[in-house]
Amino acid sequence: MKITILTMFPKLFDSFREGPVVQRAIRKGSLELTVVDIKDFAPGSFRHIDDSPFGGGAGMVMRCQPVLDALRSVRGSAERGSAVSSRSTIVAALSPAGRPFTQKEAHRLSQVSHLILICGHYEGMDERIYRHVDEEISIGDYVLTGGEIAAMAVSDAVIRLLPGALRSESTSEESFENGLLEYPQYTQPAVYEGEAVPEVLLSGNHARIRCWRLKESLRRTLERRPDLLEGRQFTEEEIALLEEIKKDAR
Amino acid sequence: MKITILTMFPKLFDSFREGPVVQRAIRKGSLELTVVDIKDFAPGSFRHIDDSPFGGGAGMVMRCQPVLDALRSVRGSAERGSAVSSRSTIVAALSPAGRPFTQKEAHRLSQVSHLILICGHYEGMDERIYRHVDEEISIGDYVLTGGEIAAMAVSDAVIRLLPGALRSESTSEESFENGLLEYPQYTQPAVYEGEAVPEVLLSGNHARIRCWRLKESLRRTLERRPDLLEGRQFTEEEIALLEEIKKDAR
Repeated sequence: MKITILTMFPKLFDSFREGPVVQRAIRKGSLELTVVDIKDFAPGSFRHIDDSPFGGGAGMVMRCQPVLDALRSVRGSAERGSAVSSRSTIVAALSPAGRPFTQKEAHRLSQVSHLILICGHYEGMDERIYRHVDEEISIGDYVLTGGEIAAMAVSDAVIRLLPGALRSESTSEESFENGLLEYPQYTQPAVYEGEAVPEVLLSGNHARIRCWRLKESLRRTLERRPDLLEGRQFTEEEIALLEEIKKDAR
Repeated sequence: MKITILTMFPKLFDSFREGPVVQRAIRKGSLELTVVDIKDFAPGSFRHIDDSPFGGGAGMVMRCQPVLDALRSVRGSAERGSAVSSRSTIVAALSPAGRPFTQKEAHRLSQVSHLILICGHYEGMDERIYRHVDEEISIGDYVLTGGEIAAMAVSDAVIRLLPGALRSESTSEESFENGLLEYPQYTQPAVYEGEAVPEVLLSGNHARIRCWRLKESLRRTLERRPDLLEGRQFTEEEIALLEEIKKDAR
């Protein structure tokens, strides 16, 4: 998979690129990560990147020309490359008005051959830029300075799903993968400052451990994020565990 | 405000710290940003930071000792400092099982004198660490490699609300501030590749511009995020505009 990030602040991605998961994905040949500086496509001085909004108001709005010229250069080179089919290229812009990013979306994007992410002022890109964008992605209902941190979040969530990116294939029991929050985790020592690990985890009884974890996942999701359970299909085991949780609460 | 970030990867924050908004907040005296390396609190080699989970399973779990020792050192120095009251210190861990972060939460956290953010393996911190944490924060329903990008998102959203962080006081009309997504923005040129800016924005008529923007905010929110409108109190003007939007759609 190829990920290309268009940004005015390429340096922000220096340390991201050095991270262990990104590096492993690159070494395994699963990932090609390119960061393109939008400023390279702005003729003259810095002020040509953005300008005041028509109609007034505070803040600056990213101009069409540098962003779209940068996008065209990336699309052009992708289409010339043989490994990347332009049909499976997705151009996405990070924006608080975008579609909420979820683990399901991360899986979908990890199947794309070329993901182009546009980072602009988070609340001010000329609307005409979006005509050239396949989708707008929001990483959550809050406002960031720019799309850069959002692009890192999306890239990280996607990259760790690529073959070879994680040391172990450990994503299947994670939060959201089965529609539930993850169960509590414990590691050495068995007692820390007087507090012991739940006995079941030391039992070596895999069936009991699995069942305890599922119950704790259900309990935590019910307590913290009941919205995640709406419309969910429960197994018979889960229904029995939910009954137990209700009894525990009495 | 003081923000302290506990992480195993302090270098990841180097470029974040250099960003214009963070730098302006520091210069204006609104922000003190400290990054603490959890590895400094792990005796011996790297392997003492994390270990296999009790009960089996893939992935590594962060151990209590280095994280809690790092936390104690930060709390200790904060309590010794006179400017920071320990009562308005919040210790938060980034976790996919946390409370969803929103713009409202960003405002709340921007009122705290000391925000301590713990970044661990995103899905594996020993549960006993959370006993020492005031809250768990999730930036969205997806899984990241570590809490670092999440901590950057939270910090960025909070810092830009601090006095003097933004060049202009432009946050009041942003997405989510009035419960709506932001209206479309346009800047120079008035016509780009044949596509013109909406005429109203060039009219100079501030009342018409305000009304157009509110209508477009409502339209966009209705189309993309009807969930944001649930339980919202609408003004009379907004109700009239919603009627117009329905007529436009016919």
